[in-house]
Amino acid sequence: MSGWLKIAGLGPGAEAQVTPEVREALDAATDVVGYIPYVARVAERPGLTLHASDNRVEIDRSRHALQMAAEGRRVVVVSSGDPGVFAMAAAVFEAVEAGPDAWRDLDIAVLPGITAMLAAAARAGAPLGHDFCAINLSDNLKPWALIEKRLRLAVEADFAMAFYNPRSKARPEGFARTLDLLKTACGDARPVIFARAVSTPEEELRVVPLPDCTPEMADMRTMVLVGSSQTRVIARDGAPIVYTPRSVAS
Amino acid sequence: MSGWLKIAGLGPGAEAQVTPEVREALDAATDVVGYIPYVARVAERPGLTLHASDNRVEIDRSRHALQMAAEGRRVVVVSSGDPGVFAMAAAVFEAVEAGPDAWRDLDIAVLPGITAMLAAAARAGAPLGHDFCAINLSDNLKPWALIEKRLRLAVEADFAMAFYNPRSKARPEGFARTLDLLKTACGDARPVIFARAVSTPEEELRVVPLPDCTPEMADMRTMVLVGSSQTRVIARDGAPIVYTPRSVAS
Repeated sequence: MSGWLKIAGLGPGAEAQVTPEVREALDAATDVVGYIPYVARVAERPGLTLHASDNRVEIDRSRHALQMAAEGRRVVVVSSGDPGVFAMAAAVFEAVEAGPDAWRDLDIAVLPGITAMLAAAARAGAPLGHDFCAINLSDNLKPWALIEKRLRLAVEADFAMAFYNPRSKARPEGFARTLDLLKTACGDARPVIFARAVSTPEEELRVVPLPDCTPEMADMRTMVLVGSSQTRVIARDGAPIVYTPRSVAS
Repeated sequence: MSGWLKIAGLGPGAEAQVTPEVREALDAATDVVGYIPYVARVAERPGLTLHASDNRVEIDRSRHALQMAAEGRRVVVVSSGDPGVFAMAAAVFEAVEAGPDAWRDLDIAVLPGITAMLAAAARAGAPLGHDFCAINLSDNLKPWALIEKRLRLAVEADFAMAFYNPRSKARPEGFARTLDLLKTACGDARPVIFARAVSTPEEELRVVPLPDCTPEMADMRTMVLVGSSQTRVIARDGAPIVYTPRSVAS
């Protein structure tokens, strides 16, 4: 019996955004491992065991998945969005590097998914149509000073910015500091997109000029996209279109 | 008759990475518009007209698509990867903003796809598992000095980096200058991933320490991913795993 481990991205929420290769991996799996709300998106069926766990246990979850694959099981670790962007793929490889040598030779693959920033950008128009950066605003795993340094440099580089995990109940102050920093460093009224629960029935999209942004506009289900200095807003009936042109004049 | 325009991402190449919502849009379309090799990925069928055009005509192509949607046709503009990342979505919205007011009220949607950097990252492991940036290395639409500025700031921010359009026959020198800049600014042997034609039968993946990188390792079908200072390489039989840990120590 030859086991394998696939680290699969379920996309932001809609079934129509799950790729066929991810669907096929789930259909072939004996075990699905992941954070509770993501495992809940996988249908139960005979022969499939669902292993749902809480967040903040990513390494334990990874070891469990690797151990099962080493025992010959067909294991899918599920992430929301894309597994390589602030999700489970890095955690699994941390566990591989720290684990027994035999884990390095397991059949492991990462199956990409539609990551939240690209789903959110698509809803708003094309705010990431020029150079951009992606920053995880959680300081659980890195010092806050590093986040602030990156924000300042990203403004100086005139990147559009995508923020993952902007705000949680446990860390309400980080996003407030982020907005204060951006208002000062940018000094303009560039558009900010608050995209909550994109592609689900609870989807909400707001486009707000930077000076008018307030911290409570985001929660942990919100992707925040900040335009560059070049980003444009096209007003129309209904939601405006936000896009960043491809060109920058010399 | 009510027309619409969908700007759809076909993913990097494999059919198994095309989302169901994109497939459905193609099935419902009367017209598909795009760059020749991307339109070639759409199967012909009765009732569907394929409009393939060369590159560098993105605005003409966008106007044509908008005009057809305004006339009541069901139009899909196809991009490789994700349409919002260095692809057709920004071009269409540039055309909307410059075009007749009526175009603003058209039924326009962007359907995200698996963008090349995430497909390439998945093949290599999880090199974009921490904060990162995406830069288009073509200076067709922006001054080279701006690209260099962004590269320097990205190194200072210690972002992992994803480079689109690293090198073309018409612009062979830009990528050479990029590598020179990075070798000096980074001053280490961080891994660089050259991922060519990912998810297609011609796929090639190389992991090369930065000091050993040479310009001819990339062409226009190559995504280049550069690690941050924290990026790790796990050696094993076969291709190594490259990943960037989630944590940075205080």
